[in-house]
Amino acid sequence: MTVAPTSLDELCINTIRTLSMDAVQKANSGHPGTPMGLAPVAYTLWTRFMHHNPANPHWADRDRFVLSAGHASMLLYSLLALTGYDLDLKELQDFRQWQSRTPGHPEYGHTPGVEVTTGPLGQGFGMAVGFALAEHLLAARFNKPGHTIVDHYVYGICSDGDLMEGVSAEAASVAGFLGLGKLIFFYDDNNISIEGSTNLAFTENVGQRFEAYGWHIARIDGNDLDGISAALEEARAETRRPSLIITKTTIAYGSPNKAGTAAAHGSPLGEEEVELTKERLGWPPEAKFFVPDEALAEFRRCLDAGKQLESEWDARFASYAEAFPEDAAAFRSAIAGDRPSGWEDILPKFAPGDNAVSTRVAGGKALNALASIFPALVGGAADLAPSTETLLKDYGSVGPHEYGGRNLHFGVREHAMGAITNGLAIHGGFIPYCATFLIFSDYMRASIRLASLMQSHSTFIFTHDSIGLGEDGPTHQPIEHLASLRAMPGLRLIRPADANETAAAWAVVISTSGPTAMALSRQNLPILDAPHDVVFEGTKRGAYVLADAGNSQPDVILMATGSEVQLAVAARATLEDEGIATRVVSMPSWELFAAQPQAYRDEILPPAVRARVSVEAASTFGWERYVGDAGVAIGVDHFGASAPGGTVMEKFGFTAENVAQHARDVLARCREGGH
Amino acid sequence: MTVAPTSLDELCINTIRTLSMDAVQKANSGHPGTPMGLAPVAYTLWTRFMHHNPANPHWADRDRFVLSAGHASMLLYSLLALTGYDLDLKELQDFRQWQSRTPGHPEYGHTPGVEVTTGPLGQGFGMAVGFALAEHLLAARFNKPGHTIVDHYVYGICSDGDLMEGVSAEAASVAGFLGLGKLIFFYDDNNISIEGSTNLAFTENVGQRFEAYGWHIARIDGNDLDGISAALEEARAETRRPSLIITKTTIAYGSPNKAGTAAAHGSPLGEEEVELTKERLGWPPEAKFFVPDEALAEFRRCLDAGKQLESEWDARFASYAEAFPEDAAAFRSAIAGDRPSGWEDILPKFAPGDNAVSTRVAGGKALNALASIFPALVGGAADLAPSTETLLKDYGSVGPHEYGGRNLHFGVREHAMGAITNGLAIHGGFIPYCATFLIFSDYMRASIRLASLMQSHSTFIFTHDSIGLGEDGPTHQPIEHLASLRAMPGLRLIRPADANETAAAWAVVISTSGPTAMALSRQNLPILDAPHDVVFEGTKRGAYVLADAGNSQPDVILMATGSEVQLAVAARATLEDEGIATRVVSMPSWELFAAQPQAYRDEILPPAVRARVSVEAASTFGWERYVGDAGVAIGVDHFGASAPGGTVMEKFGFTAENVAQHARDVLARCREGGH
Repeated sequence: MTVAPTSLDELCINTIRTLSMDAVQKANSGHPGTPMGLAPVAYTLWTRFMHHNPANPHWADRDRFVLSAGHASMLLYSLLALTGYDLDLKELQDFRQWQSRTPGHPEYGHTPGVEVTTGPLGQGFGMAVGFALAEHLLAARFNKPGHTIVDHYVYGICSDGDLMEGVSAEAASVAGFLGLGKLIFFYDDNNISIEGSTNLAFTENVGQRFEAYGWHIARIDGNDLDGISAALEEARAETRRPSLIITKTTIAYGSPNKAGTAAAHGSPLGEEEVELTKERLGWPPEAKFFVPDEALAEFRRCLDAGKQLESEWDARFASYAEAFPEDAAAFRSAIAGDRPSGWEDILPKFAPGDNAVSTRVAGGKALNALASIFPALVGGAADLAPSTETLLKDYGSVGPHEYGGRNLHFGVREHAMGAITNGLAIHGGFIPYCATFLIFSDYMRASIRLASLMQSHSTFIFTHDSIGLGEDGPTHQPIEHLASLRAMPGLRLIRPADANETAAAWAVVISTSGPTAMALSRQNLPILDAPHDVVFEGTKRGAYVLADAGNSQPDVILMATGSEVQLAVAARATLEDEGIATRVVSMPSWELFAAQPQAYRDEILPPAVRARVSVEAASTFGWERYVGDAGVAIGVDHFGASAPGGTVMEKFGFTAENVAQHARDVLARCREGGH
Repeated sequence: MTVAPTSLDELCINTIRTLSMDAVQKANSGHPGTPMGLAPVAYTLWTRFMHHNPANPHWADRDRFVLSAGHASMLLYSLLALTGYDLDLKELQDFRQWQSRTPGHPEYGHTPGVEVTTGPLGQGFGMAVGFALAEHLLAARFNKPGHTIVDHYVYGICSDGDLMEGVSAEAASVAGFLGLGKLIFFYDDNNISIEGSTNLAFTENVGQRFEAYGWHIARIDGNDLDGISAALEEARAETRRPSLIITKTTIAYGSPNKAGTAAAHGSPLGEEEVELTKERLGWPPEAKFFVPDEALAEFRRCLDAGKQLESEWDARFASYAEAFPEDAAAFRSAIAGDRPSGWEDILPKFAPGDNAVSTRVAGGKALNALASIFPALVGGAADLAPSTETLLKDYGSVGPHEYGGRNLHFGVREHAMGAITNGLAIHGGFIPYCATFLIFSDYMRASIRLASLMQSHSTFIFTHDSIGLGEDGPTHQPIEHLASLRAMPGLRLIRPADANETAAAWAVVISTSGPTAMALSRQNLPILDAPHDVVFEGTKRGAYVLADAGNSQPDVILMATGSEVQLAVAARATLEDEGIATRVVSMPSWELFAAQPQAYRDEILPPAVRARVSVEAASTFGWERYVGDAGVAIGVDHFGASAPGGTVMEKFGFTAENVAQHARDVLARCREGGH
């Protein structure tokens, strides 16, 4: 086993190693080996290279650090606590305990200095690409000759597991294509996965693969501090390509019996082995969570250095603000996420007499209108910009070393698109959106979930939202997707029924934080025949009375979302003609509706009216919540079919007459049953 | 534009091109350009190289063809109809129409000769890897010196889009690692994606990337028939590596105004352009769906050739059967999916007094027991075999050129794992399973959906199925996943409550077709205190009365799944003590229960008993279906937390007392409300 090069460096590195061992041992759960192997890399990066200010983890131009291998969380917590972030060293002793700030995997918004939530492999890698893209986009927008106010690196550490995941492959291809020179990843090449040696499943030539993507590659020994520094210098000097530093490490370095084995990956080393390891590392074997004063002092130099770095940046920014006051204001505004007053007025309005228009087209109009006053709006599609109507028509594309545009081309890489969008949203400075067909939300579901968990301001535009898309058939027709997205905590799903509801959906995106998913139609939909305010404001509340019963109390309530609202409206006309008092509730968003006061909800869906029919061209799963025991949900509980959209809709029962018939039946049953 | 080399070849190739154009034009929907560009490759492959018998698309040792670029479906339909499969040429005229056998994307089980459903990009590529793996596994098991009965290739065509997807990257790495020499893919390198040139987002060096995975690479001009043949010969000669033939094609070859443009990708060429193209191809411009007799005759030679090939194989198999009668019987049995009589008896039984055991461990025991009598059972995990308890202990691993084992090591590649499992299932000869944590079902959701759509006999084992997993925290704790899987049509989800229910879940897998997902606990669960038959047979019906009310009619029904059934049992004891007649229904599978006759369902959940409480440590989304308006669902409608599992469960309300209290409240409300 090699010996670390200098005494103080060794002491610091072994402090990280022993803290990690101790915390995992005390929790009796966690991953000790990876922090131990990576300690020299992390120590060098955090104390010698990274521009960060532990006293202000929100400094806009700080370097970002992403631990994509989130299971090595004790590495990050050790660094945060040692370098002086608002995380007391004592909190390391509560690793993985209820309500501690040192949970099993790093959680954004939960622990100061944690830049993103990681753990699901590959996601951190993808978000880091988003961070680096954000830096390049901001630099292109705001830097001026002689005035560089955006200039930070994105450093990351990824594992074998990260690089086996498809999402990282997609993201690496995007980063290589765009030439994101500020992105520098260490790849922890430790030859060990949970099942054993990586020879069991992972023998590809990672360096060659990343070269194929257009990355710069370096290869180092993870215990050679000079080599680590040299590789970092080289990577920073490479401005036109992202860098992958392939770092040979030994998992559980220092452990006499478990170093280099899968046993050290996901389980504590055991009390005895911890002691043996401490001995080997020249540590007092019985001391727990021991931090030598000299080591702490060395780590804490980051505090002074960080203050110095930020104040230098402040000075640069002040000089910039003097020379370019409008740009400086725009920068501040972008980072703060300001909204110009009266912004909602820019949204297009549609009148009932206007031509029918698909909600995807309406969405494109709203998006383009907003883009004209929100420079922060950037985004793109997974090779479906024309179909999803998400091109910003007055702006250029982002391409290799061309970062002035606003249209992103993600390629057919939905998963990386989701992760990159999350990274853009969390970096600050942007309101990012991304788009594909609703069916392909399946490909990026892990990223949508992470957006929901982090409450990142990510917007997911999903078009072709039902069997109504027609000919592409069951492989492309979403069925269970609305239910699946509604079941996800923290995500807001909006399925607008017409162009005005779509504009309102965009108003919700702009006026809220957290992620929003939109489900938009391929097919044209008539403009709903109701006052604009009713539709627009009603959409923001998630559900509203679009057309009320002819007399005060409805006999039956028809509720619907998206393209099926028109069927409810048509069915209502028939039913009213028959003397059945019928209310139509348009219900674009369950989550927005659920957040309304009980009084509002009871006003829209009076508990006394139990004859209820829902209509949605999707799985009925979950609709019992709103139709209740007496009601019926019209939907599609099987896969779709390839045929023109109108045919498929009709064959599967989406006709006004079928809705009316169900309403009659429900009402009859309620009357018989005494409901 | 180059001219095709021979007159008859040119005629045949242009027949495919014009049929594709005409069908898309008539449907006024579809993708004409790709079939036109790929026609020479497909023609050469299907008529000169592929061993197939159009008269018997089920011949076990046929070469498989996978059109991963499923949007080019007219290429496949043209080939099927022209070479003489049971698809009349007239059916091409119903392309993308209601109930036709020529839907928008190829559908397995719907059109004779379609080997897998494709369309969602990358899935076909992954399933083809599964096909090739199946071939290698079967060859290792059954071929004998001098007797080769398993010897077929897997040919595929993939597009830029397929290769941008992460799932194909993962699958390519697996195929390269394993050295699947029988896998040969054409990569349609046409420089065009939906948004425009691939220069917009895809400039990586695909050949270099695949070399890094361990593939053999060839580069050809897609219009050079000799080059196509030479590349195929070379790829077939390469037995130790899969082959990628990078094929330069021109999208919409022959179209004077749209060739080589994105306009020809996803829209009809237009009547006028179709005519102009026909002129250019030397075709009668006004003739539609025209098939020259000479061309048809040439294609139909596949019929005789195919009969000859299959009869030669029959002879080889007869000789094999004579020399190795037991192996021959085993081969037939594997392909037919036979089950030995009394197989269910092999499943382990657990008694109420036995030690508590996690359902993941119980699942491992059941799986290993079955493996001893079902040689067809093969599978593995996404680097989580130890955690998911899915190792077949008495069998070896599958590795590079070592295909005799039964444990597959997928690496941290969930998505490819799903696709490869589907491929194994559909190929025939295997009952494949795959495993990961339930949370990571998100990474492979598109493959689970395809399994459900195809009704492939794929088994997905998802362990660590709730917040009960504890310390790993919210990134690893599934919340919405049970609901999301239940919402998917065609998928059977089983969440067993104890070891006997888990064994029954495996009995369901073996005795049914179609896909099954299992949700299994990390934590130990007591053996349910009920007769084995009640639990075992009850599980197969999806829900059953585990413990009935003290008197004949229950006051309240507690229903639960998985690890929460024990809470319902404990709550029942308290409630019964208080004089509240309480039934506990264990409900491991909604789908199995929904498939029971109404009488059975009403017996288990009597409609008259409206005081109902469900308990499941997951999103309550959808539970209204069973608890009804009067009931209450106890669940988790927010993200989890990092802490020991027992703590998280308790803090989130999963205690017997909380269940009992909800039951009292519900019952009181029902009595007040007159329910």
